[in-house]
Amino acid sequence: MTEKLFMAGNEAIAEAAIRAGCRYYFGYPITPQNEIPEYMARRLPEVSGVFLQAESEVASIYMVFGASGAGARVMTSSSSPGISLMQEGISYIAAGELPCVIVNMMRGGPGLGGIQPSQSDYFQATKGGGHGDYHLLVLAPSTVQEAVSLTMEAFDLADKYRNPVMILGDGFIGQMMEPAVFEKKSESNPPAKEWALTGAQGRKANLIRTLDLNPVKLEQHNRKLQRKFEEMIKNEVRVENYLTEDADIVIAAYGTVARIAKTAIQVLRNKGVKAGMVRPISLFPFPYKAFEEVTQHVGKILVVEMSLGQMLEDVKLGVCGKADIRFYGRVGGMVPTYEEIVTETEKFVKETN
Amino acid sequence: MTEKLFMAGNEAIAEAAIRAGCRYYFGYPITPQNEIPEYMARRLPEVSGVFLQAESEVASIYMVFGASGAGARVMTSSSSPGISLMQEGISYIAAGELPCVIVNMMRGGPGLGGIQPSQSDYFQATKGGGHGDYHLLVLAPSTVQEAVSLTMEAFDLADKYRNPVMILGDGFIGQMMEPAVFEKKSESNPPAKEWALTGAQGRKANLIRTLDLNPVKLEQHNRKLQRKFEEMIKNEVRVENYLTEDADIVIAAYGTVARIAKTAIQVLRNKGVKAGMVRPISLFPFPYKAFEEVTQHVGKILVVEMSLGQMLEDVKLGVCGKADIRFYGRVGGMVPTYEEIVTETEKFVKETN
Amino acid sequence: MTEKLFMAGNEAIAEAAIRAGCRYYFGYPITPQNEIPEYMARRLPEVSGVFLQAESEVASIYMVFGASGAGARVMTSSSSPGISLMQEGISYIAAGELPCVIVNMMRGGPGLGGIQPSQSDYFQATKGGGHGDYHLLVLAPSTVQEAVSLTMEAFDLADKYRNPVMILGDGFIGQMMEPAVFEKKSESNPPAKEWALTGAQGRKANLIRTLDLNPVKLEQHNRKLQRKFEEMIKNEVRVENYLTEDADIVIAAYGTVARIAKTAIQVLRNKGVKAGMVRPISLFPFPYKAFEEVTQHVGKILVVEMSLGQMLEDVKLGVCGKADIRFYGRVGGMVPTYEEIVTETEKFVKETN
Amino acid sequence: MTEKLFMAGNEAIAEAAIRAGCRYYFGYPITPQNEIPEYMARRLPEVSGVFLQAESEVASIYMVFGASGAGARVMTSSSSPGISLMQEGISYIAAGELPCVIVNMMRGGPGLGGIQPSQSDYFQATKGGGHGDYHLLVLAPSTVQEAVSLTMEAFDLADKYRNPVMILGDGFIGQMMEPAVFEKKSESNPPAKEWALTGAQGRKANLIRTLDLNPVKLEQHNRKLQRKFEEMIKNEVRVENYLTEDADIVIAAYGTVARIAKTAIQVLRNKGVKAGMVRPISLFPFPYKAFEEVTQHVGKILVVEMSLGQMLEDVKLGVCGKADIRFYGRVGGMVPTYEEIVTETEKFVKETN
Repeated sequence: MTEKLFMAGNEAIAEAAIRAGCRYYFGYPITPQNEIPEYMARRLPEVSGVFLQAESEVASIYMVFGASGAGARVMTSSSSPGISLMQEGISYIAAGELPCVIVNMMRGGPGLGGIQPSQSDYFQATKGGGHGDYHLLVLAPSTVQEAVSLTMEAFDLADKYRNPVMILGDGFIGQMMEPAVFEKKSESNPPAKEWALTGAQGRKANLIRTLDLNPVKLEQHNRKLQRKFEEMIKNEVRVENYLTEDADIVIAAYGTVARIAKTAIQVLRNKGVKAGMVRPISLFPFPYKAFEEVTQHVGKILVVEMSLGQMLEDVKLGVCGKADIRFYGRVGGMVPTYEEIVTETEKFVKETN
Repeated sequence: MTEKLFMAGNEAIAEAAIRAGCRYYFGYPITPQNEIPEYMARRLPEVSGVFLQAESEVASIYMVFGASGAGARVMTSSSSPGISLMQEGISYIAAGELPCVIVNMMRGGPGLGGIQPSQSDYFQATKGGGHGDYHLLVLAPSTVQEAVSLTMEAFDLADKYRNPVMILGDGFIGQMMEPAVFEKKSESNPPAKEWALTGAQGRKANLIRTLDLNPVKLEQHNRKLQRKFEEMIKNEVRVENYLTEDADIVIAAYGTVARIAKTAIQVLRNKGVKAGMVRPISLFPFPYKAFEEVTQHVGKILVVEMSLGQMLEDVKLGVCGKADIRFYGRVGGMVPTYEEIVTETEKFVKETN
Repeated sequence: MTEKLFMAGNEAIAEAAIRAGCRYYFGYPITPQNEIPEYMARRLPEVSGVFLQAESEVASIYMVFGASGAGARVMTSSSSPGISLMQEGISYIAAGELPCVIVNMMRGGPGLGGIQPSQSDYFQATKGGGHGDYHLLVLAPSTVQEAVSLTMEAFDLADKYRNPVMILGDGFIGQMMEPAVFEKKSESNPPAKEWALTGAQGRKANLIRTLDLNPVKLEQHNRKLQRKFEEMIKNEVRVENYLTEDADIVIAAYGTVARIAKTAIQVLRNKGVKAGMVRPISLFPFPYKAFEEVTQHVGKILVVEMSLGQMLEDVKLGVCGKADIRFYGRVGGMVPTYEEIVTETEKFVKETN
Repeated sequence: MTEKLFMAGNEAIAEAAIRAGCRYYFGYPITPQNEIPEYMARRLPEVSGVFLQAESEVASIYMVFGASGAGARVMTSSSSPGISLMQEGISYIAAGELPCVIVNMMRGGPGLGGIQPSQSDYFQATKGGGHGDYHLLVLAPSTVQEAVSLTMEAFDLADKYRNPVMILGDGFIGQMMEPAVFEKKSESNPPAKEWALTGAQGRKANLIRTLDLNPVKLEQHNRKLQRKFEEMIKNEVRVENYLTEDADIVIAAYGTVARIAKTAIQVLRNKGVKAGMVRPISLFPFPYKAFEEVTQHVGKILVVEMSLGQMLEDVKLGVCGKADIRFYGRVGGMVPTYEEIVTETEKFVKETN
């Protein structure tokens, strides 16, 4: 049954997880995502689930490893420094081919930084903050509604590829209240997982491991993982082309910045500037093709991020020299206004004409 | 006084650190780099230094934070999973503008993987495995001699930029024995650091912090860090062009793989194939220009890594569509042989002519 | 419904806990009590309970704190070194007046010691291994049947006094198989706890805390705790007098040693020595009176422990100079045989007559 | 050279440790003893020593284990909850026969309690808060001068018995400023330790271990430890008899309370009450004999503690029914005044005559 609720992004993500069958949550508090563990602490017992605040983020992520290995749908969430502490565990989870969902509500700065919104963990999320050849599947919602549907989808994708999926947001998206429709989704158990450690009665024992001292076998395992990443690249690219068809200039932005960019684009169009946007929704796999295609009729791409230029590299890889690229970034918790984006766009249009 | 010693790479790195004035080492054991802490445990007390095995890698990196904040030259070392555990701390050290040297002797696979050589932490090292906008200065030696000189230089660079510097190697480079010349270098103290927390007697107290809840100030701080990274990009690119002048095809490789590629290039040249190599020594800052320049007369670049294609992305960014790029990678502890590189190069030369 | 099962002591304790309404178990593995977490891992999900292996014993005991604070019946178990790691947490739980059950299956030696049976944690258990004025209620079963009934009772006592209760055994009692009757006991929820942190909807918020910087109030709190310990001393002493009425010599022993002593007493009586036993079942509160009373007609007390003389002090406090006391102890995992006890008793009888 | 300094107790303990040859300090901050680590952080580098703040008390005590095993004089300090966290490590250190000095500046209450003075860790200190048959040698200074001399002696005793020694105080003694004479004491190295792990060049390797799975051997080891405790009991009892010779009533008190009791005794004597004091200085080994002896002419003993009756048990064991014993305690950070002690003594004298 479809239901429409008015909720903050963090709470909506938590509720969506539960409706997707998530029954285990392990985490450690950190602003600006504490509404997620708070909601989980209240709601999970109602559905016979387990909420547990662990000793640290290191402990949390290994509890996620454990629950996932036992076949459960499981989630953790944190913000930048906490996600850094999970990097070893995330690498182990990817190596062990275990499905789980990890939410990162990014905050400003390296170090302890600040609690305002940021997009400075793009590299960590998409290139692999942990060690070894692996990737997270990374989804970046820009509305509460999208946070809901991507979170639900995240659990299915995690199971499909047996790989961790990250929801990448920030305090803006986490604390903003918007109406969101929750599509009918069974709250009950996901499909059985034959590989899971559920007790080996009447069958051969399963084994989950992340170590192989034989390099021939370890290479085979790594290539197997690689094939999954290639499957993701083939099947799971999500991108929004917004008013790109007649655009002379395209803005590249995701998440919170993409919301602001939409306003900027309306203002620009009212002023006669044909601006559009390519909005990556999946950051890994990245929509390189969407950028390659847009260069067939667009010569200017303005990348706007709350970072000092991270997605910028992927845009460059997609564009591959076929369009001019400029970058505008705000950091440390500063959020670019639509006026700033309008100004930067107009400057770009003028100066290079 | 110059001295020539015959040592394994790991020991040579440790000795070089001590000769560069390193007096503090904190770490936690992991193969294939245990010769570093073992050597440090023996040698540091001889020079009134401190070796300490901490409770974990998380503890180690924060002890590095502490010693560095007090103005000391300090080092830690680990291998892939241990480096992942340090990601939060590394981000804090970069945010606090603290100099230190971190050695990563990479091992195969995500997860616990295996102990054989690998180059699969390239993304983690160069793009920032931690959170926020920061970079390590990353140096990748391919001989024991280079390990010695880059380690010595690393301490100077760390102090110069007040930023962590990573020496990126693998078990091959760490355990191979070669002669190495140790240039005269004072074992005594590095230049005084005015910003360090050395007790505030007779002066204003210094403050090291990684938190600023005011986003205006935090943005200023992040932009200050960014200017340092731009300075590194301007001043600190290290690259070797090996037989590229007359080359028709160029191999891109670093570290251990570059050693093997040199043999392959000799074989290829004996067979009449004019192969050369661009060998990045600094991985951040990356020698994009060297790749851009080589495309002026070379149309084919074969990237060879012990990974599934990580440096590959930086080569693509440098080449920017101006040459054909192919990739050959071995993983999980498998090391490409020179014969494999010869074969891949010949294939590339033939098929695309 | 009453049920008779043939089980090892560790498993019987676990099953008894579940039948007493225990729904949460947190722990970290250590021999010789791993059958408890293993059993809990299997059984708790069947009754919608939670089994969780934490990062360490320190983490485990604070999860016990959390679950208890939320009103749940919760248990942990470990063996000597693990219990030492819990001492801070146990002190906090006692300070916060939180009910829980802690099982210590003691092993030999200080340090890592050995895995064989021991009773060397008597002081830690009864005098307070943690800091501050507090006591555990300590119960020491000597059969599997008693392990079952004391475990069930432990949860009721914990709730009654809002205080941690310890089941003190060893690997002998934990791994020995015996039939045990499980009395009918609701598996469902224990009585509601008005003080618990169950969400404060429609009522004043509860507060659990272990800190009070105002010494006047902190003293009041400590005296309140003290009154509870005095209530325990008044109401909860459990002791078995075994053939003491006509005895000339009395053996003081508990747990595993008491089983062996019973055999020794039969042998001694067959040989004409009127031996009996005072067997403390509750170690705190200690049955001082039983010892005081027995001195009215008995002049010799042989204390036998698998320690170097710990309960011995409590026996001395009870006897208060009114009888001769001797001690016989085995340690490090060595278990006294009934022959040894017979010999020691006979020696005692002869020498001092 | 003898030197007289005016210092707070915590600082005096730190300075005394350094003068006794202590060169390593590991700890984690907690009130009311932070002056010790602060002083050590400043002073140890001046004597080529190492101060290190570890990740936790658990980490600290194992660093103490390590440094001690390497033959160094090493100290840690904390307050009640922190000492509880060290219980596992302390038991391991005792099992491994490693010398070290541990300072506990007790605070009020179980749990986090408060920071005011207390003596509620008496049981933990003297009976063994950790697991297994072991004892600390426990010394309780009641002046800054005594803190200095007992700390110096502590290092010698630790080495003599290869056993941890505890200095037991509270915030009162730690923060009170008094003049203290530092006797000439070499700051240099203590006598070489043949058992220490100093590298095995030219000799058989030493081994420090706390595990023995063979119960026959483990029992032998435990009995060896026991013989050391018996040696301590024979040689190391320290006690002050204060005006006991003509006393009709004796106060039993140690540390801070003993200072206050001295004033009370003066007041009582001015009022015609012949009061005296037996002041245990070593709490383990406890001066049982001093109490036994005093009962030859004294019929009343008033035990005064900042606890709810812990040393009381040892006094009872010493007195063994030969005198009336009363207890007066304040807790939670409340310190008994001399007026209270006068009143309690007078009441005791009157009521039972």
